[in-house]
Amino acid sequence: MQAIPYIALVSALAALALAAFFFKDVSSAPPGNERMVAIMKQIQAGARAFLRQEYTWVAGFVVIMAVLIPVITGVALSFLSYLLGAVLSAGAGYAGMTVATRANARTTNAAIDGPAKALPLAFRGGAVMGFSVAGLSLLGLTFTYLLFVEWIGTDDAFEIFTAFGLGASSIALFSRVGGGIYTKAADVGGDLVGKVEAGIPEDDPRNPATIADAVGDNVGDVAGMGADLFESYSGSIIAPVALTAFSFGLAADAADQEPIVQLLVFPMAVAFVGMIGAIIGSFAVRGGSSTEVKALAKQLHRGTTVAMILTVIGTLIMGRVFFGDGDLFEAWYGLPLSVIGGLIVGWGIGKVAEIWTSDHFPPVRRIASQAETGPATTVLSGVSAGMVSVAASVGLIAVGVLIAYWGGQQTLGDTTFGGVYGIAVAAVGMLATTGVVVSVDAYGPIADNAGGIAEMAELDPSVREVTDALDSLGNTTAAIAKGFAVGSAALTALALFKSFEVALTSAAAEKGESFVLSLDVGSVDVFIGLFLGAMVPFLFAALTIDAVGRAANKMIEEVRRQFREIPGLREGTPGVEPDSAACVAISTRGSLREMLAPGALAVVVPLVIGFIDVDALGGFLAGALVSGFALAIFMANAGGAWDNAKKYIEAGAHGGKGSEPHKAAVVGDTVGDPFKDTAGPSMNILIKVMTIVSLVFASAFV
Amino acid sequence: MQAIPYIALVSALAALALAAFFFKDVSSAPPGNERMVAIMKQIQAGARAFLRQEYTWVAGFVVIMAVLIPVITGVALSFLSYLLGAVLSAGAGYAGMTVATRANARTTNAAIDGPAKALPLAFRGGAVMGFSVAGLSLLGLTFTYLLFVEWIGTDDAFEIFTAFGLGASSIALFSRVGGGIYTKAADVGGDLVGKVEAGIPEDDPRNPATIADAVGDNVGDVAGMGADLFESYSGSIIAPVALTAFSFGLAADAADQEPIVQLLVFPMAVAFVGMIGAIIGSFAVRGGSSTEVKALAKQLHRGTTVAMILTVIGTLIMGRVFFGDGDLFEAWYGLPLSVIGGLIVGWGIGKVAEIWTSDHFPPVRRIASQAETGPATTVLSGVSAGMVSVAASVGLIAVGVLIAYWGGQQTLGDTTFGGVYGIAVAAVGMLATTGVVVSVDAYGPIADNAGGIAEMAELDPSVREVTDALDSLGNTTAAIAKGFAVGSAALTALALFKSFEVALTSAAAEKGESFVLSLDVGSVDVFIGLFLGAMVPFLFAALTIDAVGRAANKMIEEVRRQFREIPGLREGTPGVEPDSAACVAISTRGSLREMLAPGALAVVVPLVIGFIDVDALGGFLAGALVSGFALAIFMANAGGAWDNAKKYIEAGAHGGKGSEPHKAAVVGDTVGDPFKDTAGPSMNILIKVMTIVSLVFASAFV
Repeated sequence: MQAIPYIALVSALAALALAAFFFKDVSSAPPGNERMVAIMKQIQAGARAFLRQEYTWVAGFVVIMAVLIPVITGVALSFLSYLLGAVLSAGAGYAGMTVATRANARTTNAAIDGPAKALPLAFRGGAVMGFSVAGLSLLGLTFTYLLFVEWIGTDDAFEIFTAFGLGASSIALFSRVGGGIYTKAADVGGDLVGKVEAGIPEDDPRNPATIADAVGDNVGDVAGMGADLFESYSGSIIAPVALTAFSFGLAADAADQEPIVQLLVFPMAVAFVGMIGAIIGSFAVRGGSSTEVKALAKQLHRGTTVAMILTVIGTLIMGRVFFGDGDLFEAWYGLPLSVIGGLIVGWGIGKVAEIWTSDHFPPVRRIASQAETGPATTVLSGVSAGMVSVAASVGLIAVGVLIAYWGGQQTLGDTTFGGVYGIAVAAVGMLATTGVVVSVDAYGPIADNAGGIAEMAELDPSVREVTDALDSLGNTTAAIAKGFAVGSAALTALALFKSFEVALTSAAAEKGESFVLSLDVGSVDVFIGLFLGAMVPFLFAALTIDAVGRAANKMIEEVRRQFREIPGLREGTPGVEPDSAACVAISTRGSLREMLAPGALAVVVPLVIGFIDVDALGGFLAGALVSGFALAIFMANAGGAWDNAKKYIEAGAHGGKGSEPHKAAVVGDTVGDPFKDTAGPSMNILIKVMTIVSLVFASAFV
Repeated sequence: MQAIPYIALVSALAALALAAFFFKDVSSAPPGNERMVAIMKQIQAGARAFLRQEYTWVAGFVVIMAVLIPVITGVALSFLSYLLGAVLSAGAGYAGMTVATRANARTTNAAIDGPAKALPLAFRGGAVMGFSVAGLSLLGLTFTYLLFVEWIGTDDAFEIFTAFGLGASSIALFSRVGGGIYTKAADVGGDLVGKVEAGIPEDDPRNPATIADAVGDNVGDVAGMGADLFESYSGSIIAPVALTAFSFGLAADAADQEPIVQLLVFPMAVAFVGMIGAIIGSFAVRGGSSTEVKALAKQLHRGTTVAMILTVIGTLIMGRVFFGDGDLFEAWYGLPLSVIGGLIVGWGIGKVAEIWTSDHFPPVRRIASQAETGPATTVLSGVSAGMVSVAASVGLIAVGVLIAYWGGQQTLGDTTFGGVYGIAVAAVGMLATTGVVVSVDAYGPIADNAGGIAEMAELDPSVREVTDALDSLGNTTAAIAKGFAVGSAALTALALFKSFEVALTSAAAEKGESFVLSLDVGSVDVFIGLFLGAMVPFLFAALTIDAVGRAANKMIEEVRRQFREIPGLREGTPGVEPDSAACVAISTRGSLREMLAPGALAVVVPLVIGFIDVDALGGFLAGALVSGFALAIFMANAGGAWDNAKKYIEAGAHGGKGSEPHKAAVVGDTVGDPFKDTAGPSMNILIKVMTIVSLVFASAFV
């Protein structure tokens, strides 16, 4: 058993080697003609500039937290693991952005020869992000575990281990929010002036915001999403470890005893199995010759399917090895079933996302047909579709929680701990194949960028057709990845929540006091906490949507100014170029300023409530979890559905491009933009940041 | 103390007498010219036909429930109080509809002479609804209390008393949902064909849906809203009585002991005080000569202000009388402060609604200015405005709960019961002035109808100007009344929730078992319940929004058909009339069919969960309460804000009527229609129906 962290560490290194291999593979592909290279370089420069500035701002926050955590909690070394989590998360985001801004033009160039070459290229670009995320996270976690639990062996080893998660969350929070505001400010602002006012097509080189829009895909949908999944993946592994450690009041020297050691390292074993599955799965993605979306989707999903099957088999083997000793454990198959249950529920939530956001299913078609009666009915049908998908997803989570709980009790006996541990490892199962899931997700913005470059470089329309086919998959794959992220957030948050409960009790015991957290919603402070918690996701969503609006307005003014002041720009006089850099700078400044208020909200509110009344904080976290989950699914799926309803009409239904229904669908799409790319995906980080902040500071509350 | 129910009963009769007086007063006003009378008669016939059919359908449901309740709970006589609650609620709705469909044309006619005559007339029309609701509810409650507790004195007296609330809820559920679907199907459907396709103005006599739209205002915004407030008012009085009875395990013969009798009748005393205040306040509303909205609002709000001040004074006196005995109670001022706290928080939530939905404040103006960049930004700014208003309202509720809890403990000692009793009477305080609050609310649809009649009867545009000024107040007053309804729902549901908890314990004790409801959100079943509960309001909202969409589509087809098949209709050839009756029939059929699924959901789901796992039901109710409250506020305020942003533009801002920003604002308004008039206002009934179903069937769950 003691070998498992080392084995997992090696699999993490293997994932990083694979990422490096894909990086070289992508970089060696030809980037196309001079114009394409020039555009790519502009995008690269913009994305790099944004990330550097963002990380500079966030560094300030991280330094403050790195000082506060040891000071308030008294655990000195946790600043180290906190910093490590933050740095690795930022590194994964930077790596993903770097390759994505190289893969875009190369994908465009490959699309000249058709999808068979372009699809694998875009996928491998995404896979660099995918395996950087999973590899760096698992590397950091196993290293932290080995360092503090095995090698140094301090009393606070597990508090220190947990702080890694808060580091990852800190970066994720600002990356998701800042990147999300950036990408949508550029997208919405550029579209409103370009498409609506000036009447020029999307991604037209005359539009000064086009480069900023492409930059946004890379910093929001690639780097932001990567940091999000880094945090989710890390959190899912931390939750069962922290739960075990705090439940048994473990210090490092007690961590070698059986059966505790099994419980501590089993999550890493599942992560190892999933990593191997994901690595093998990533080679199963090949490009077909068809540009038909269904055929492309099949290619893309093959990688995920292979990874999942291998993970299921590996988990069963691991379960037998770990829990086969009938003296220590009851039925060995229980916890593996929890893991597999999690995997299936994650897949199920992704499937719900697909059904509600792909134009092969009724919801998107219904939205498209409602576009016949104008924008209002388009918006309403999207709202209701998103809300129905909440019901389906919550139902799946409920089933998953029940299975995972039951599974945990089968192996660990009929205790609450056993059940909750089962829920915690279900989240690990859900995210075990993160490497390939993120690859598929990050593929989307690369394909989107590739289309933009084709348009800007004025390539033959047939190239755009190929990239459009690749891109239209992206909305659905993005919705699927968001399903995994938010589904795991629910399970992880629940497990962290339980860890919070036991951490409070043990922290009080250390101070010689007795404390039991009351989570009785019938008591008034818990109930008020529940109410406030349920409200926070609404406020957070409003803040981020407004932030997009304000940043987009600045963009609109700038684009209008350029059309007004640069002669020949709107008309497309040869040699007249827009000042794209000015738009990039506006998006950068705007989004960085706007991310502060929502970010601070997420960190400060639980601390304030915790110091006032820790029971209320328990209710608060529960309320935020359930309402945040519902809003996250609602916004992600409604947004994806509107986007694809628009694409469905653009493909020829209900009058096609330029028709009245198309205009209505564009309105729906624009409403959905900040829903699905800013507010919605920030929800799961919001939930987890608040929970993990509470957990890390638990000892200070009692 | 024993005299209090009699005194309250007398005040209820006084309210009914006032309603009758206003009814005569309104009926004696001249209804205008022949054409106006003809239109009014059409609206009357449509509204009557709908309500009769609706009540017929609902009667089936009511009969089933009347059989099920005694069978499942074993409390035979509760079917009587259940039926009484249902019949009185239906009666109040019918009365309100009847007067509203008389007051409309009379208000139009009075508007010819200006607002000084029209405003009081419309208000008095609304006041018939207001005082019917409050009077019939208080009459029914005091009568039921006297009959079963005082006169007959059965063991199950309080179970029977509680069933009155379920009767009221049953009617409210279907009236709100059915009426809400009706009114918006006609409104949205009519507008989409009329304004958008045919290019004819709102309420144009050529549009076949115009009459159905006017009928909708009466069955949705008058009868539906009346049933809603009837239920809220009844529920608020039932909650503290039930809480007291079940907490002390009371049968009728124990109800005379001090200090219990004080606790049982104090809510009725507050209701009495509030009723007197409302009656006096209703005479304070006079019409000024200005058509300026601000001056009109002042007139209208004067009634509420007077009523509130009188209620505060009366409550303090009552508190001194009830709780002045230092041997029985601690500080006498505690519970009065709870009541006053509730009153102020209700006013505060209404104020939040006003700030977010009136064009005198920044949110609506911001939405109007966002209309400059098109419908998408209009929708987004409304969404975020609605969500921010959730934060403000939840904050107020949290403060209100704390004050009320503290107040209860000041008078009743430092127990959970004392605190929760304080919360329960805070809801009574919030609704004590229902008579006048509903009057102001029901005034809105009457003014709206009056404007429609002016348009249809082709009166001088100056008349329409007066009615428009009256009407634009209506959106804000409606939002305020919804604030009271949903604010009280939160407090009442919390108190009923506690009653549910104690009812379960006492029901188990009767069966010789011991049972304590676990509401620990850390346990898996409660947590799953919480998750499912938080999801149900989303599903319910989706079902009702979809229902509006489907019913509106049928309306659109019918209107299109008439324009196609009736020669000369669109052109306005004299003598050519649309077939309005066909549209009325379509709305009626559509909305009745569509109300079944969401209605059944609200009743069946808690029963199913309760019989599977009653702890999960506890979590479920808590989750539904917090997420339902947030959605209710969000939808009501976003909808109101969009509507008034449109009106603000129509009044001349941002290019005025017909401009591009106006078109964008119309889209926002249409999105908001089912938000604010169908899904949003159904939420508080959903929450309460589920809670009161659980409470009534509690004894069967253990």
